[in-house]
Amino acid sequence: MGQETVQETAFTIVQGGSVTTPRGFRAGGLHCGLKKTTRHDLGAIVCEVPAAAAGVYTTNVFQAAPIKVTRESIAAGGVLRAMLVNSGNANACTGQQGEADAYEMRAVFAEAIGVPAEQVAVASTGVIGELLKMDRVRGGAVELPAKLGESYEAADDFCQAILTTDLVKKEACVAVTIDGRTVHIAGASKGSGMIHPNMATMLGFVTTDANIGSEALHGLLRQVTDVTFNMITVDGDTSTNDMLVAMASGLAGHDELTVAHPDWAAFAEGLRYVCEVLAKAIARDGEGATKLVEVQVRGAVSDDAAQAIAKTVIGSSLVKSAVFGADANWGRIIAAVGRAGQPVNPDTVDIRLGDIVTLKQSAPVAFDEDEALAYLKGDTVVIHVDLNMDNGSAKAWGCDLTYDYVRINAAYRT
Amino acid sequence: MGQETVQETAFTIVQGGSVTTPRGFRAGGLHCGLKKTTRHDLGAIVCEVPAAAAGVYTTNVFQAAPIKVTRESIAAGGVLRAMLVNSGNANACTGQQGEADAYEMRAVFAEAIGVPAEQVAVASTGVIGELLKMDRVRGGAVELPAKLGESYEAADDFCQAILTTDLVKKEACVAVTIDGRTVHIAGASKGSGMIHPNMATMLGFVTTDANIGSEALHGLLRQVTDVTFNMITVDGDTSTNDMLVAMASGLAGHDELTVAHPDWAAFAEGLRYVCEVLAKAIARDGEGATKLVEVQVRGAVSDDAAQAIAKTVIGSSLVKSAVFGADANWGRIIAAVGRAGQPVNPDTVDIRLGDIVTLKQSAPVAFDEDEALAYLKGDTVVIHVDLNMDNGSAKAWGCDLTYDYVRINAAYRT
Repeated sequence: MGQETVQETAFTIVQGGSVTTPRGFRAGGLHCGLKKTTRHDLGAIVCEVPAAAAGVYTTNVFQAAPIKVTRESIAAGGVLRAMLVNSGNANACTGQQGEADAYEMRAVFAEAIGVPAEQVAVASTGVIGELLKMDRVRGGAVELPAKLGESYEAADDFCQAILTTDLVKKEACVAVTIDGRTVHIAGASKGSGMIHPNMATMLGFVTTDANIGSEALHGLLRQVTDVTFNMITVDGDTSTNDMLVAMASGLAGHDELTVAHPDWAAFAEGLRYVCEVLAKAIARDGEGATKLVEVQVRGAVSDDAAQAIAKTVIGSSLVKSAVFGADANWGRIIAAVGRAGQPVNPDTVDIRLGDIVTLKQSAPVAFDEDEALAYLKGDTVVIHVDLNMDNGSAKAWGCDLTYDYVRINAAYRT
Repeated sequence: MGQETVQETAFTIVQGGSVTTPRGFRAGGLHCGLKKTTRHDLGAIVCEVPAAAAGVYTTNVFQAAPIKVTRESIAAGGVLRAMLVNSGNANACTGQQGEADAYEMRAVFAEAIGVPAEQVAVASTGVIGELLKMDRVRGGAVELPAKLGESYEAADDFCQAILTTDLVKKEACVAVTIDGRTVHIAGASKGSGMIHPNMATMLGFVTTDANIGSEALHGLLRQVTDVTFNMITVDGDTSTNDMLVAMASGLAGHDELTVAHPDWAAFAEGLRYVCEVLAKAIARDGEGATKLVEVQVRGAVSDDAAQAIAKTVIGSSLVKSAVFGADANWGRIIAAVGRAGQPVNPDTVDIRLGDIVTLKQSAPVAFDEDEALAYLKGDTVVIHVDLNMDNGSAKAWGCDLTYDYVRINAAYRT
């Protein structure tokens, strides 16, 4: 109050940073003809050295062909030289031919940049159940290496190339200090519809010049995913193609990062922040969304219980519609809390919309409707739920449910 | 083919039948002032003898006050003389005062019809978190007994009084033969939004003149609910107020029905049919819906697995939007099948929309888009999923997701 508080963070946000900011990475994108418009639909990130790599994938039973190929590449040696991504076609539910196409996509680009095929990962996003137009993918993959660069524009081309119904590109970059050296962690993501924990139609790519092994990177990526990408939902649907891949060039030149390294926590916090920014950007850009909704649950019996409750509230169509209509209908929030299947004391729940208390110890509190309306009309709405039971807490992110969500999804394919 | 097939059923559908068709029941409804419009908002079913009674309730942690009171009434002696229902206010999350109001609502009506309070059940539906206007409820409860009757019009008044955002009333009636005597089973229900397994904002009331004990009725009601009301979803939300109550007057005069009775199966099938009609009517009248969607899953490893998959498909916002747009986007169906958390062989799935095959053994099948469009524009869409693994099967019902769902829910309270 009147005095500034300086929050100490383990990292610095790098304005204008992108996936090419960490040392060793180039990126680019172009239009090869998979999208009906002239927007970019093929992009790549390439590392000048073999980068330690780790991936986290969709839990859907039907995993698209590129997921199989990327898993194989990372499993082969734990390193990647490149990540090739197309939009406009998911190459999912495409059978043997789809698998052959994903392998060929990898082989063509590997040859074009002169690296072994198993050091290339591939990702696809778009319509399910149609075969890739491979003549266009081949042409684009051969043309793409000449477009790669370290500039912000080159990184922008990549960010654009991975989008489908997204309205805006998503990127983030931070700097952390490890052994006294500056290390960058950057990321790009896409996702707008079919977004749901765990790992719904979203693609995420992280680059860093940190020196870290593939296994340590994988362990950390899983932890971070649990509290970031797995805590967003747009519509409850989980895609066949979700993938988050991290590549670490090691070119920052510090001692190898392990859990025992004194700067491990700083790196972990930087990575978490980058992933949180990318995840929230996906939620805010949810199909048809007009605002970002954040649900904060505290006082639960455990973090897991809090996570389940936060996900149920953020996924409620009724809550999402009410937020769209700027209607302080907290009854729908408590109804969602009550059906999450977690321990809840029905007599001790507090609910706040921003700073506006609507429920205290499970009893309605009179509030100013005009104030609530003004708050709910903002571009970010935070719903606070305190169960007053124990110390479990969680955050989840989503968006409102709007006419445009229906419009976009009623005729996506046609 | 050219020859008529006569399907033998255990029951006969009674056209124009309603909750007053079974012997012993009167019903009625009126406007007491809980709704802002002049539509009916208070209704009752009254039995001339103590009727064996059973109830099934919401699984939400926050159970509304009337649920507590109705549970107590049925637990007291297993019989009910009356069911009093108000719409316009759910009396949920209303604390001690709400509980006192529910008890008073019960007491006032019990006195008005001259029966013990514990032989009256109460139900409420509408907005959460606001206290009942008890002066209006009291006035209505005293006035209501004079309005009760056995006519179709009186039953219609009851059916109207329990509606909220519903566009149409829901009722069904069948006749079955037990010990050579005609027995009627009838029902009325309401529900449109916040509908989801298990037992979301829906109220259902079944009357029958069968002679059956409270415990046997309860066991059967639970079984039937699992394959009817618990298999519908409109929006994935589960309310605090769901309740299905059955009352059996016994006035048909046959031997008491137990599982050992030779006509038990006929009664069970008749009850299942009545509940299925009421459940499907709720799904078709889902908020903003333009059509009924039925998902039939077969070939699953178990009925439970099939149920979980059917519920996931019917609950997918992307599938629901595609059906609204008459878009044969089967990729969204298979994505939903794959995230249901059940055993699925990714290589053996068949999908049909009506008679139109779109996926065979997990491989896309070319189909006539115009034919698919015409089918999807109909008022009922059946999605068939065959996993080709074992004999597990299930049906689930829902509706499309439309602009009107958003419109209705963006400003329900205001």
